[in-house]
Amino acid sequence: MTKANDAASPDNGEAAASSDLHTVDIVFDARARTKGKMKSEVTITSQFSNFSVTLETDEGKLHGGDASAPMPLHYFAAGVVTCLMTQMKAFAKRLRIPVENIAMDANFHWRLEQVGREPYVSQPVGFDIDIDVESDAPLEDIKRLIAAAKKGCFAEQALTLPCEIGHRLKVGDDWVEV
Amino acid sequence: MTKANDAASPDNGEAAASSDLHTVDIVFDARARTKGKMKSEVTITSQFSNFSVTLETDEGKLHGGDASAPMPLHYFAAGVVTCLMTQMKAFAKRLRIPVENIAMDANFHWRLEQVGREPYVSQPVGFDIDIDVESDAPLEDIKRLIAAAKKGCFAEQALTLPCEIGHRLKVGDDWVEV
Repeated sequence: MTKANDAASPDNGEAAASSDLHTVDIVFDARARTKGKMKSEVTITSQFSNFSVTLETDEGKLHGGDASAPMPLHYFAAGVVTCLMTQMKAFAKRLRIPVENIAMDANFHWRLEQVGREPYVSQPVGFDIDIDVESDAPLEDIKRLIAAAKKGCFAEQALTLPCEIGHRLKVGDDWVEV
Repeated sequence: MTKANDAASPDNGEAAASSDLHTVDIVFDARARTKGKMKSEVTITSQFSNFSVTLETDEGKLHGGDASAPMPLHYFAAGVVTCLMTQMKAFAKRLRIPVENIAMDANFHWRLEQVGREPYVSQPVGFDIDIDVESDAPLEDIKRLIAAAKKGCFAEQALTLPCEIGHRLKVGDDWVEV
């Protein structure tokens, strides 16, 4: 992983050569464990900035939990919408498009199908994000900013581009693909 | 949206007819706004359970923030891994597979490409989740449980199945597709 690279910083791009193509790997680790009933605890670390956060999750009472912490999908939806918003703020600086406040109103819609009481199968129906930008910039500049932010946004790109998720299960001292 | 449907509850499936196919819509809303510099605040509401959570995000100092709150990708990664873990707990009950604790060690890897100081383009390289299950159940049962949880997990399905994200921009009193 390329750690010492300033591409991920929106503020120091001036130091980069004007036309060099460079790449940066952005890696987050997450260690999670169950904590009885439907509760879990997870520590997520950004390898780039070595910034760790520990969060708890729970489910509501309907789902056998105690509603003592946000649900996993609260975090998931929060991550997607704030990733895009933060990307817009960062790229507004780079593109020198003046932007004051941004508000977003997003909707995340899934559908699950279930036969009897078998485990259900879920699928995304569609996610929608309405964006309200406070800015004196021309409309075309705001559209250009949003287009760039969509392509830069790590969460949106993971949702819209093909994304492989590998799973391994610990069996004795070995790990097997599952 | 079908609200009064017990399919999403892992504990009351006994009440459902044994072979009926039914569907449930699962919807989360998220309202987010910037709070100066790189900070944002987002309120996420599960329509199903009317459970709301308000979270803040920030970026590290390298990215122009104050590291005063988790980064968007902390929440995103937390949501993905805990969604799968919670799904395993819920489906273990349904499948009557005895499971004690579960631990997961996940890795989320993106790469960004940038020319000079232009806005970068990011893409997912791959996500990996290692699963350690404390259980006396046969290995085949644990594999069956993981296979079901992958298909039930809302976050994983959104990442691995085609997922459309619509965007609209407020222009005066209208909303235009962007």
